[in-house]
Amino acid sequence: MNDHIMNIEQLDTPAAIVDIARMQHNIDVMQSRMNALGVTFRPHVKTTKCPDVVHAQIAAGARGITVSTLKEAEEFFAAGIVDILYAVGIVPAKLPRAMALKHKGCDLKIIADNAAAASAIVEFCKAANDTFEVWLEIDTDGHRSGLSPDDDALLTIGRILRDGGIEVGGVMTHAGSSYELNDPEALAALAEQERAGCVRAAERLRAAGIACRTVSVGSTPTALAAKSLEGVTEVRAGVYVFFDLVMANVGACTTSDIALSVLTSVIGHQPDKGWVIVDAGWMAMSRDRGTSKQTHDYGYGLACALDGTPLEGCALVGANQEHGILAVEHDDDLARRFPIGMKLRILPNHACATGAQYPEYHALASDGSTVAWPRFHGW
Amino acid sequence: MNDHIMNIEQLDTPAAIVDIARMQHNIDVMQSRMNALGVTFRPHVKTTKCPDVVHAQIAAGARGITVSTLKEAEEFFAAGIVDILYAVGIVPAKLPRAMALKHKGCDLKIIADNAAAASAIVEFCKAANDTFEVWLEIDTDGHRSGLSPDDDALLTIGRILRDGGIEVGGVMTHAGSSYELNDPEALAALAEQERAGCVRAAERLRAAGIACRTVSVGSTPTALAAKSLEGVTEVRAGVYVFFDLVMANVGACTTSDIALSVLTSVIGHQPDKGWVIVDAGWMAMSRDRGTSKQTHDYGYGLACALDGTPLEGCALVGANQEHGILAVEHDDDLARRFPIGMKLRILPNHACATGAQYPEYHALASDGSTVAWPRFHGW
Repeated sequence: MNDHIMNIEQLDTPAAIVDIARMQHNIDVMQSRMNALGVTFRPHVKTTKCPDVVHAQIAAGARGITVSTLKEAEEFFAAGIVDILYAVGIVPAKLPRAMALKHKGCDLKIIADNAAAASAIVEFCKAANDTFEVWLEIDTDGHRSGLSPDDDALLTIGRILRDGGIEVGGVMTHAGSSYELNDPEALAALAEQERAGCVRAAERLRAAGIACRTVSVGSTPTALAAKSLEGVTEVRAGVYVFFDLVMANVGACTTSDIALSVLTSVIGHQPDKGWVIVDAGWMAMSRDRGTSKQTHDYGYGLACALDGTPLEGCALVGANQEHGILAVEHDDDLARRFPIGMKLRILPNHACATGAQYPEYHALASDGSTVAWPRFHGW
Repeated sequence: MNDHIMNIEQLDTPAAIVDIARMQHNIDVMQSRMNALGVTFRPHVKTTKCPDVVHAQIAAGARGITVSTLKEAEEFFAAGIVDILYAVGIVPAKLPRAMALKHKGCDLKIIADNAAAASAIVEFCKAANDTFEVWLEIDTDGHRSGLSPDDDALLTIGRILRDGGIEVGGVMTHAGSSYELNDPEALAALAEQERAGCVRAAERLRAAGIACRTVSVGSTPTALAAKSLEGVTEVRAGVYVFFDLVMANVGACTTSDIALSVLTSVIGHQPDKGWVIVDAGWMAMSRDRGTSKQTHDYGYGLACALDGTPLEGCALVGANQEHGILAVEHDDDLARRFPIGMKLRILPNHACATGAQYPEYHALASDGSTVAWPRFHGW
């Protein structure tokens, strides 16, 4: 890690580059949209795990953050952020660690979607003579976790908490199946399904006398596709801050919106095969092949020139740990076009997975200068 | 990170567990084989990036190590290992960093497979009034980098180095296509192809008056399948130390040899779908789906009980960042069989990729106690 300014051409490879102008544009577009829809915005920081990025989101108007691990909660609380939603169903064994954070002054909200976890929270809080604000996780698209809005278990669990002296502060849902769509009408329909389901869950809880102040929905594609957010109080989204090739295939962005890229160097050629070997393998790109089942399969990423312009007829078709194989169409002199040591930039399939491979981003300004933005790792 | 002893049941999840007895067995089997074949052994430490593991490999008889990044070279030199092969084609811009390590006393060998890199090394060394030992990378199976043993470019590049005052210390090859096989005879044939090609390259160089002392071959499957290593002086292998599900499909191990697993907790259920939700998502397992095209597709990993026994009829079919979806066949009472908070262990598809997700391993002794073994991250 170093925090002095280096030009992008001086950086060692591989390196994770954040185009600051693109990132700021993505932040501004999302925040403006949320402002127009009349909801607050709580970005999911699991994408970046980077205080420099999150401070830019807060500066643009975000209110609080969403995290996927207690380590994220601890690190961002240490970085000055107090209002934190831990949006993965709580494991009872993690309650002491969560409570320790609350005792330091963190306004940490936890979630539950089952009676066993709710009962464990009640018991823990009684023993600790303390409390948590708990939100109930709602399933609005069947892709993963959560309670159906129409299931009576929703009310049962709400009552376990309320009767145990725990505040049910809200309901939250994440329509993650939006990643599988690529049609604007289908995305708008899923956004409405996400909204309607989560609002319905809140209304049923309120009708049963359980307060449920907050109604929290979101995923990057549905946040950008929603036409109405009536009854919703806040939206969450994460990957929009950088975007990636999966999101471009979904239609949530274009490739020129993608703010994260991997800087790599040419290390060899196999002219008979039309291959250029680069030092961005799967350790640099991640093993994420999220575009493999989408309209456009980008292999391990979209190769661009150092200035960010996509290279026509090139595909990162293979990756070993520290080797990437860039297949180039119709080129009789690969070694001339791609000399040893030449630097390229690769746009990633999945910004969350690629970022996780790096201890730091290099934030790139329009003049070519970069500065290191640390990110953290682990749980 | 903590270095005090904890029982496996006390660990927070997800966590990367190394079964010490299995690891030591894997180390001993490989070293014994190399001893019997009359070659020295230079393990590839990219799998673990963990000094505790590598010291066990050295203690068993390994001579020197192989690395895939200069960071690995720097970290392991700092941990006391001097004889290091950097086995990724050198980028000329990395030569100053490599030389800095050599100046500290590291016996660092670098590799090249093209004239441009060879010329850059010669020029750099002239300007620095210093030298490197360079090995030539040989392609014996067409899967990635290297010079064909029969290509005259091999001799041209050897002469560029020699005439520039650089010692050509050896040839090295890696038959990485062995990962795509699963038949003992085909593996033995590929091991022979790897051996014969690399020895032929060395003989051609020697016939041209280029010394080429070392002949280095290897991959985990070919190292275990080779019947003769005549003419070879050393073998390299990496993943054998932990093994993984890809290697089990190749036939290089059984699932009961796999020393790395991910400790996870049950966080929810979707009984209508037969799903148990666990806190091992792709951040914990990696996105590696290396078994997807093999005989047995293990999804994101093989689920086991806390004691390491594989669970019949269970498959980790999906993974989001911090959620894994464990599909369970024929179970009417998932919540009873897999209560909230229950701990499981998941064997990974690819030990190198899964390990890279963690700042540390938890090394598990036979009495259930664990101790933290730090590993490093980045380049």
